[in-house]
Amino acid sequence: MTEPTRRELANAIRFLAIDAVQAANSGHPGMPMGMADIAEVLWRGHLRHNPANPGWLNRDRFVLSNGHGSMLIYALLHLTGYDLPLEELKNFRQAGSKTPGHPENFVTGGIETTTGPLGQGIANAVGMALAEKLLAQRFNREGFDVVDHRTWVFLGDGCLMEGISHEVASLAGTWKLNKLVAFWDDNGISIDGQVHGWFTDDTAARFEAYGWQVIRNVDGHDPNEIETAIQTALKSTDKPVLICCRTTIGYGSPNRAGKESSHGAPLGQDEVRSTREALAWPYGPFDIPAPIMRGWSAVEAGQADEAEWRTRFDAYAAAHPELAAEFQRRMAGELPRGFAGAADDYIARLQAEGPVVASRKASQMAIEAFAPHLPELVGGSADLAHSNLTLWSGSRDANSGDANANYIHYGVREFGMTAISNGMTLHGGFIPYDATFLVFSDYARNAVRMSALMGAHAIHVYTHDSIGLGEDGPTHQPVEHLASLRYIPHNDVWRPCDAVESAVSWRAAIERGDGPSCLVFSRQNLPHQPRDDAQLRNIARGGYVLRESAGAPEIILIATGSEVALAMAAAERLGPTVRVVSMPSTDVFDRQDAGYREAVLPANCRKRLAIEAGTADFWCKYVGLDGAVVGMRRYGASAPADELFERFGFTVEHVVEAARSL
Amino acid sequence: MTEPTRRELANAIRFLAIDAVQAANSGHPGMPMGMADIAEVLWRGHLRHNPANPGWLNRDRFVLSNGHGSMLIYALLHLTGYDLPLEELKNFRQAGSKTPGHPENFVTGGIETTTGPLGQGIANAVGMALAEKLLAQRFNREGFDVVDHRTWVFLGDGCLMEGISHEVASLAGTWKLNKLVAFWDDNGISIDGQVHGWFTDDTAARFEAYGWQVIRNVDGHDPNEIETAIQTALKSTDKPVLICCRTTIGYGSPNRAGKESSHGAPLGQDEVRSTREALAWPYGPFDIPAPIMRGWSAVEAGQADEAEWRTRFDAYAAAHPELAAEFQRRMAGELPRGFAGAADDYIARLQAEGPVVASRKASQMAIEAFAPHLPELVGGSADLAHSNLTLWSGSRDANSGDANANYIHYGVREFGMTAISNGMTLHGGFIPYDATFLVFSDYARNAVRMSALMGAHAIHVYTHDSIGLGEDGPTHQPVEHLASLRYIPHNDVWRPCDAVESAVSWRAAIERGDGPSCLVFSRQNLPHQPRDDAQLRNIARGGYVLRESAGAPEIILIATGSEVALAMAAAERLGPTVRVVSMPSTDVFDRQDAGYREAVLPANCRKRLAIEAGTADFWCKYVGLDGAVVGMRRYGASAPADELFERFGFTVEHVVEAARSL
Repeated sequence: MTEPTRRELANAIRFLAIDAVQAANSGHPGMPMGMADIAEVLWRGHLRHNPANPGWLNRDRFVLSNGHGSMLIYALLHLTGYDLPLEELKNFRQAGSKTPGHPENFVTGGIETTTGPLGQGIANAVGMALAEKLLAQRFNREGFDVVDHRTWVFLGDGCLMEGISHEVASLAGTWKLNKLVAFWDDNGISIDGQVHGWFTDDTAARFEAYGWQVIRNVDGHDPNEIETAIQTALKSTDKPVLICCRTTIGYGSPNRAGKESSHGAPLGQDEVRSTREALAWPYGPFDIPAPIMRGWSAVEAGQADEAEWRTRFDAYAAAHPELAAEFQRRMAGELPRGFAGAADDYIARLQAEGPVVASRKASQMAIEAFAPHLPELVGGSADLAHSNLTLWSGSRDANSGDANANYIHYGVREFGMTAISNGMTLHGGFIPYDATFLVFSDYARNAVRMSALMGAHAIHVYTHDSIGLGEDGPTHQPVEHLASLRYIPHNDVWRPCDAVESAVSWRAAIERGDGPSCLVFSRQNLPHQPRDDAQLRNIARGGYVLRESAGAPEIILIATGSEVALAMAAAERLGPTVRVVSMPSTDVFDRQDAGYREAVLPANCRKRLAIEAGTADFWCKYVGLDGAVVGMRRYGASAPADELFERFGFTVEHVVEAARSL
Repeated sequence: MTEPTRRELANAIRFLAIDAVQAANSGHPGMPMGMADIAEVLWRGHLRHNPANPGWLNRDRFVLSNGHGSMLIYALLHLTGYDLPLEELKNFRQAGSKTPGHPENFVTGGIETTTGPLGQGIANAVGMALAEKLLAQRFNREGFDVVDHRTWVFLGDGCLMEGISHEVASLAGTWKLNKLVAFWDDNGISIDGQVHGWFTDDTAARFEAYGWQVIRNVDGHDPNEIETAIQTALKSTDKPVLICCRTTIGYGSPNRAGKESSHGAPLGQDEVRSTREALAWPYGPFDIPAPIMRGWSAVEAGQADEAEWRTRFDAYAAAHPELAAEFQRRMAGELPRGFAGAADDYIARLQAEGPVVASRKASQMAIEAFAPHLPELVGGSADLAHSNLTLWSGSRDANSGDANANYIHYGVREFGMTAISNGMTLHGGFIPYDATFLVFSDYARNAVRMSALMGAHAIHVYTHDSIGLGEDGPTHQPVEHLASLRYIPHNDVWRPCDAVESAVSWRAAIERGDGPSCLVFSRQNLPHQPRDDAQLRNIARGGYVLRESAGAPEIILIATGSEVALAMAAAERLGPTVRVVSMPSTDVFDRQDAGYREAVLPANCRKRLAIEAGTADFWCKYVGLDGAVVGMRRYGASAPADELFERFGFTVEHVVEAARSL
């Protein structure tokens, strides 16, 4: 071999995928075989990246939305020179490898986001492209385009069938994200077979209806057609671009190409052999000849690209030192120096002033207090801005072109919103918050899970947190949502009881750089709770003694949010031997050391009563078999909030009675 | 007033909405005021229904997908003669009224489905239209169109922004549901304001891309244009129809029309007065003049419509008595006489034969065993038919025109699928089952909740139930899903441990006419468990003693699904004083009488260990503060299943050790 052909270069991807899936005896060879030619044109000709530094701030972002084809990107990372040696590819899908079944950004350098749950990759990519656009607006200066990169996406029929694709493609069109380019792997096959029985959309027309530029009818196995399409895409000035690539799933496999049988299972030894023959690939498993490796290497080009950018950035830093420092701070995810002190002051002032407001209002007050220090805070709501109270005095529409744009009108698109938040925080430069009613966290649920799985620094604001929302009725009244959000591993849920706890929860969410927080707020007013300095400090520990008993507690009442005031009133009635624990975040409390937890909930006190207008059973974890819970065991109803609280037992009388029955 | 004008008739809706919202001091007047003219044309001229019998089998279905405008349908029901007296309208949004904040089909006659969570109404409607089509294919005979009705939908911008609208509109187009007609309330306003900042889709083009007939540019306040559009829609032979109606939200309100301020709050006394003047409506609150009531009444026309159908049906019954009886049985939701006996036999045979299969395979075997008795069983999967194992030998594609069509290829559309299931069961004539991987129940979550809230008889099948799915990794491995599905009130979750429990769970789901069931199955093989007759019977109680201890139990191991075999092996190792409880459905177990529960889990035995490859904390409810749980406290990983079970402590050794540490 002298100079490999483009097809031979693409075949390197195909056989790495085939061989790795075969070795794992598990995986998805069909997609990498089908999209290899597209990948070859994009990655060798257009993607700007530096394999030696996957964290280069101005790299292009590449998102594999059809994440089951993970071997495509592992092959690309290996071939172009990332730190992903052949050994890792041989260990595909094995414990401890850097090549898990689906791409995981927290495992493998060069993976921008974790994909597999279909449709969310393209949603993350929309968030990344929006982040790029907003950062460019904010930081670029005449002659210094320090933020200037593209977001490229591969996606398949599955992503396009998912509802989230509608939500985010619509927003990308509205936002005119022209540097977002998606390649549709139009292979006519999904897991159940030929898609014509269940996927008959005119996808090109659909995306044009969203305001995208659509490049139709590209032969996904012809590098020239792909190249031409990309050249056209690069010229788009005000529209995201969808390139429709006709491809053959499992391309090259004599008996499985074009069939669903190539999608999600190894080809098998015989078919692997036949495919080697059909594609004239004489090399052994995982054997990539040196000329092909050389043809793929992006090491030199990547270093040159980054070096060119660094030169530009250094000149920018010389001309605009404060801007440059600020850009670097934000991209590093570091909070401004003054933030902690300002937060301390604000929280102390609130404790002293003791405002009586709904916690959603307290949330808005916290945003108003913290956001001026945090230009990286970018927020929005799924068409409930005035209910969620997510706007503040410094809000500027993200779609306005304003250099300080920081507010996103997401429309009624909870799932897309949340996945876009994930994309923005993964891109870097932003701490995104999104918002809807707590009950509609359901619509966004898997994106919240993905925030937590990825350790993404996103803040999910959920207001109208219980039957306390009243007349809108059971479709709008969360019951199980608090508990089930808490059960998402690595997700911190906060349900504060007053303005002070609300501010502390916002601060915790802002300072939690390695994971998401769900901040849950009331519709209705909540009274202020008095605290001494130690109590004020202990809010941040997730649970603390808000009312101490005289001597060891005989009874402990544990409550969150709107039910803390109820617990306090009941404790007054019950007498001095009753302790009240406010537990705004069980997740955070559970992470405290055993000594602290024992000090708050001493093991020998078994008369424990939990009070929360949410799933009762969740609290068995703290009250055990000898305790009790005043909670919800059914759906709410449509009626004024006060009547509902009474009907469902959230009264001082009922709590006192329940405590006395222990 | 002699003969009221159409506008006056429509204004009756407007003022009932205005007055009721004003009385409740809460609610959404803008939509009913905006869509009143459309409603007048549809309900007075085209909707076939009988106010005296909301359960008439062949009635048209009307779905208010923008359910916050509930006063529109309450006004319509009242005006046309349903059992919804003025008193109920005056009690809008009050406790115990038949007029809750959002329409609830389990509260109010004439409401077909519960709406409010946006986008799900149109999805339910697609299910209803599919049900009509399949029933017509199955039951109609030459000259006897006993199933022949339409599904009409009102929807707003919010529904169209939601991702689920994409999923179900796509399917409706593919399925050519020409008797589905949707009216889009194109008022340019959502809660945050004028939608041009966040909703710029060319919706008409988008729906054409789905294969819908789109009637553009209809003045939603001109009865003639609306009438013409409906006439056109009625002629559609192979496409669902979207009628795009330009409307003014809050039409008639001098200061709030066309503004978001009319959307979700009372107009206020002054504006109510101004609106009365502007619309020349001199009547007092809730005062509808007799001529207008007469103009609205559908009582006589409805009786005549149903009588005409009854005559037709009687003739059909004479000609095809078995078909008619079968149709009536299915629409009544009664199981066939022979079902219970056949189920008994099948379960007994399974217990005797003891097959060792994955529970997803056992699920397919159960379908294969039960479905021949149940032509109402209509199933499908979100593009995972061969993984979920939802196909059986009698499956016929729902899109085939086959009279026995009973299988739906949903494509990758979990949320739409589940809401379509809800629509089919609400229509009547079907017991739908849908399927995906357990982890992707997240995507469908609010539709599962809606099944449960409505008491809808739907069956949600979730396979690949734990880290046991192995190599696909944490994006595909459920952890918190079992617990959080169990926390949805009125939802029955089953996680069977072998083929026998799998069959029992299917039977329970089929027999549970008043609510949904989630059936959760393993990817991997599970051993058979021996049982005596009493144990076999007690599976249906949700939890039972699978291994009895010698004397009172010193330790109780509680397990579900794949962990039951592990518990049994550990018990062998631990000795004869250990009881094992298999708990396939905590929901069902919790409904048993206290005596039975005490017999299974005696209060005085506190050495309890729960074992489940899902959220550990859930089990605190049964093991208390003195027990322990071998469960999941973090995400899984990509690796072969056996290695994962070992790594996360699901080994005999670890269970024995945990039990001994109690």
